[in-house]
Amino acid sequence: MKNKKEIFAGIVIIGNEILSGRTVDTNTSTLSIWLNSLGIKVQEVKTIPDIEKTIITTVNEFRKRFDYVFTSGGIGPTHDDITSASVSKVFNMEYGPHKEAYKILESYYKPGEFTEGRQKMAHMPMKANLILNPSSGAPGFYVENVFCLPGVPSILKSMLGDINNKLIGGQPILTNTLNLRTVESEIAKNLSNVQDNFNDIDIGSYPFFKAGKLGVSIVLRGTDQTKLNNCKSEIIAFVKEKKIEIVDRD
Amino acid sequence: MKNKKEIFAGIVIIGNEILSGRTVDTNTSTLSIWLNSLGIKVQEVKTIPDIEKTIITTVNEFRKRFDYVFTSGGIGPTHDDITSASVSKVFNMEYGPHKEAYKILESYYKPGEFTEGRQKMAHMPMKANLILNPSSGAPGFYVENVFCLPGVPSILKSMLGDINNKLIGGQPILTNTLNLRTVESEIAKNLSNVQDNFNDIDIGSYPFFKAGKLGVSIVLRGTDQTKLNNCKSEIIAFVKEKKIEIVDRD
Repeated sequence: MKNKKEIFAGIVIIGNEILSGRTVDTNTSTLSIWLNSLGIKVQEVKTIPDIEKTIITTVNEFRKRFDYVFTSGGIGPTHDDITSASVSKVFNMEYGPHKEAYKILESYYKPGEFTEGRQKMAHMPMKANLILNPSSGAPGFYVENVFCLPGVPSILKSMLGDINNKLIGGQPILTNTLNLRTVESEIAKNLSNVQDNFNDIDIGSYPFFKAGKLGVSIVLRGTDQTKLNNCKSEIIAFVKEKKIEIVDRD
Repeated sequence: MKNKKEIFAGIVIIGNEILSGRTVDTNTSTLSIWLNSLGIKVQEVKTIPDIEKTIITTVNEFRKRFDYVFTSGGIGPTHDDITSASVSKVFNMEYGPHKEAYKILESYYKPGEFTEGRQKMAHMPMKANLILNPSSGAPGFYVENVFCLPGVPSILKSMLGDINNKLIGGQPILTNTLNLRTVESEIAKNLSNVQDNFNDIDIGSYPFFKAGKLGVSIVLRGTDQTKLNNCKSEIIAFVKEKKIEIVDRD
């Protein structure tokens, strides 16, 4: 499935709140959809606790394995926010107040409100590049191919616009979905045959329950629209032959 | 933070639909909350694509590192469901129709409806132990400390009851939450001091936006209720001193 043009990313979700089950991680989905649109494929996601050694090991592993690494979480002002300090160690870069970040935050807050607690948000690898935060002031940062973003989903989302032009993407990954009124076992063999004919299309099959009825979503993913169309036609052919209802499709 | 009594689990989420962003993974949260109630702590989650080699490597790594491993996804009847075959290879166990699973599915379907496609759901490591599925018939399975569950959240959830008595848990992990009308930077220093006094309590700090207002949830986690109470009292003490409003708490 891999060709030379493919560009891969890894995501590191940092935070005990995800591992305890308290919070459902939606940042993976946000990042993946956005990266796909830039032609970058997410190859692996690791969710790890707020432990310095684990963060360092994971980021180090990922930055070597993937073209881009995105971390989410742990860049706030409290004691459990240790991502910035840990990533400094990954790059042997001094951790301290970042000049530009300090200026941004100083002017973001009213005079006298840029307290010691808030100043911690300007602490990061001192030579990092900033990622601007249009929601709440405190910037994220990147060093080489590692991009560090906050854990709060709405803030993370608002910061992606500032990264867009910093990534070298590939061919955008296109998606086509066919929703069928059937069960997986009914179409498994035919689908497998179609997959054999299209090596560079990913065919996924996902059962769903909608309005009390069972169905299967067939999701086709690839970078070549013509191949995607041909693959879809082959599926529609056996679907019609089997008199399976197409519920809706895009 | 680690003591000898702690029991750790790792979760492997298998499926391109999570990595493409199409589906938000909720199984991690379901599994983590359930495992915490049994005194088992989730230490890492890896989300990986439907690639045999990756599944084998990851499961092999996890089963050595953690007391228990849970996989989610890839045990259905279609071509992209390759978890069962991959896990067979992990244990050098023959992959084929599992006698007991075959019987269960044969009697689950009406005569003539146990088609070839459906029979694939009885294919797994042939000497695996089954995990019963009260929702849709097709069982999951476990070999040694590796438990393989489906990806559909409602079905996964319904199967946990059959695993409860198969795990040796530890002391249940207790949680206490304090919701404060403040911002993190306001309490960061005090919170850090309290954390220093309680080594075996995990104190997490999570900003929230509710009804247009900012707040911070302080989440305390540990196995000793007395220590948890003492830790909470110390937090309440500085919260009162600072005249911060407690929004609600459990």
